[in-house]
Amino acid sequence: MTPVYLDYNATTPIDPAVAEAMLPFIHQHFGNPSSGHEYGQRARQAVEEARHEVAALLGCHDDEIVFTSGGTEANNYAIKGIAGLAGPGAHIITSAVEHPAVIEVCRFLSGSAPPPKALGQVTEVEPEGGEFHTKTRGCSLTCLPVDEHGMVTARQVADAITGNTVLVTIMHANNEVGTIEPIREIADAAHARGIPVHTDCAQSVGKIPVNVDDLGVDLLSIAGHKLYSPKGVGALYVRRGVALEKLMHGAGHENNWRAGTENVILIAGLGQACRLIRDNLASYEEHMKRMRDRLETALRDAFPGLHVNGHPRNRLPNTSSVSFPGAEANHVLDQLDGVAASAGAACHSDRVELSSVLEAMRVPLEYAKGTIRLSVGRYTTPDEIDRAAAEIVRIVTSQIPSLAAS
Amino acid sequence: MTPVYLDYNATTPIDPAVAEAMLPFIHQHFGNPSSGHEYGQRARQAVEEARHEVAALLGCHDDEIVFTSGGTEANNYAIKGIAGLAGPGAHIITSAVEHPAVIEVCRFLSGSAPPPKALGQVTEVEPEGGEFHTKTRGCSLTCLPVDEHGMVTARQVADAITGNTVLVTIMHANNEVGTIEPIREIADAAHARGIPVHTDCAQSVGKIPVNVDDLGVDLLSIAGHKLYSPKGVGALYVRRGVALEKLMHGAGHENNWRAGTENVILIAGLGQACRLIRDNLASYEEHMKRMRDRLETALRDAFPGLHVNGHPRNRLPNTSSVSFPGAEANHVLDQLDGVAASAGAACHSDRVELSSVLEAMRVPLEYAKGTIRLSVGRYTTPDEIDRAAAEIVRIVTSQIPSLAAS
Repeated sequence: MTPVYLDYNATTPIDPAVAEAMLPFIHQHFGNPSSGHEYGQRARQAVEEARHEVAALLGCHDDEIVFTSGGTEANNYAIKGIAGLAGPGAHIITSAVEHPAVIEVCRFLSGSAPPPKALGQVTEVEPEGGEFHTKTRGCSLTCLPVDEHGMVTARQVADAITGNTVLVTIMHANNEVGTIEPIREIADAAHARGIPVHTDCAQSVGKIPVNVDDLGVDLLSIAGHKLYSPKGVGALYVRRGVALEKLMHGAGHENNWRAGTENVILIAGLGQACRLIRDNLASYEEHMKRMRDRLETALRDAFPGLHVNGHPRNRLPNTSSVSFPGAEANHVLDQLDGVAASAGAACHSDRVELSSVLEAMRVPLEYAKGTIRLSVGRYTTPDEIDRAAAEIVRIVTSQIPSLAAS
Repeated sequence: MTPVYLDYNATTPIDPAVAEAMLPFIHQHFGNPSSGHEYGQRARQAVEEARHEVAALLGCHDDEIVFTSGGTEANNYAIKGIAGLAGPGAHIITSAVEHPAVIEVCRFLSGSAPPPKALGQVTEVEPEGGEFHTKTRGCSLTCLPVDEHGMVTARQVADAITGNTVLVTIMHANNEVGTIEPIREIADAAHARGIPVHTDCAQSVGKIPVNVDDLGVDLLSIAGHKLYSPKGVGALYVRRGVALEKLMHGAGHENNWRAGTENVILIAGLGQACRLIRDNLASYEEHMKRMRDRLETALRDAFPGLHVNGHPRNRLPNTSSVSFPGAEANHVLDQLDGVAASAGAACHSDRVELSSVLEAMRVPLEYAKGTIRLSVGRYTTPDEIDRAAAEIVRIVTSQIPSLAAS
């Protein structure tokens, strides 16, 4: 029997309707969208239909959507695009709980080799001339600390803005603990000083409503493989009037925003995935929350002192970061033959470092080391939850008997 | 009846064996290769198997292959990667017939807004402080002119090297006219001065032998959709010991060379496509040459003065750039209902500019304006060639009666 998949925040299966939307472009319509002949125009049409679906989901104009190779490229493009036009001396504000695809871009631009850690105070990272690879960039970075729930406030952002600030980039929802940041308030605070705002919505699109005007942002990243379309495709929303230095130079694809022949197959899939979310978000959200709550209830029944990380209310409906103090997360996962989950972000699963998110939230070491991320999805069933919960209870109890209810 | 597809240099259909290799990762194995559990490890295995196939085709080590979102990203990464580490003042040597995915990267780095045109003499493009978007880069660029066949020589490269030169980037085979550049000699000339060499092999892989040691290069780009795998995937070969500034920052994917969750589906396809080429290149090459020659013979029989662009011997086996003096290429293509071809590179098909490649080759204006690129492929049949040739002859004769044999 294959393990119960409770790692939807790492990646999602491809929805059958998404697969169906992709297949004609594998088997039949292979043209280059730049070609004027009918082979090309059929592919062009698919790309533009998909663009419309993404735009409709996010509540923006079609021409504000640029397709990318994924969430990482969208984040790189947004942040480097703003910083590149601003030039040396530009100041960027981010948070201590961002995904590596944001924080590592900021570190690159600011020449800060050590990971920005924010334990209770603002960390100002100044450019260092010593590192060869950053000699031409020279940005400065403010990495805002978070509270014990992983939350940043608009007040923190407002206080961090300087005369050189060119961008605020704060994620919409955290990948590890599911905390939803107050992006609207943050955007209002930044806009009051004329600063554009980027938000990484890799984890929020498809789980909670995401609308560019409700959030009030200028740049917004989405990642196909977190929303039941393939790995290798994503999109960046760029509000009309915002200018970016190109990340991919070459021919004039994507209205001259992003060179490179369009990834027609996966773009068609992403469009269909956005269509499904637009039509069904409320039921997806309700289902995920029901499954996640069923899981947490079962675990809490077995471990009365169970610690759930993340904001008690403003949390993604599918994410459960649970700490078993005294346990070692990878040791638990190794024994969990019947459950596929992750210790911290999947991106880090081959390293033994503690999660920087839990560290920034000042989760005590004993709890952080024993933290497992369980994330449910569209296809999770009550039966799967019950099987997974039983096995987690069995393994954790066998490793740390003192945790179990007597 | 669908038009005869003679635009294989714009993009190729997906080989059925490539499609077959992709489908399991659409319908079944959806895991994130970074995940430690079995869902993730199945995907990881597919990525590494594909990497091995690409490496085996190019004759390099597996760990010298970095998957990218396509040829454009591979070119951007190679050129910006070298220039970024070198910093301001770095000098790059390229040619006047490169694809936009190379020349536009060089223009960006050097701050040269006007297109580098090389009509008989070396064009030195110095960085300009005036352009906002290039203020942090500050490279200088030498864009080498070509002869009437579109050829660059190793001597030209040697003569252009300065004490600041950090990279030579010359394409392997030209996309418009098919001319094959003397990369081995160019690499030897550059290496004699300690300069690394990059070559864009988007058009050569799958048509002629491409081996990193035979070519003697340090960096080599391939594009999936030119070799019967999908658009949206490619690879960069990076010789061991060569260092690059990252283009995509984020998590440590691709041995920390390229952040972003791996595009498992398309990577599996690219691996299979490389496998097919390794097994069958000689027969592919022979078939394409036979079809191309059949086409040129038919056209030459009808138009005795037919001008074929590109090198008379060192030319791709599938490419035929033919000039009909007095004709207007787009006007011919518009009437060619039964043939899908292109006027210049497909990337430019929505602009009315003359091809910069033909301009650099100093093809007379009257010929350049009437130039059509016909490119055959693996699936081209003799019957298709005969149908296409008959229609081309009919349309061109109707437009320019004086060209036809009496």
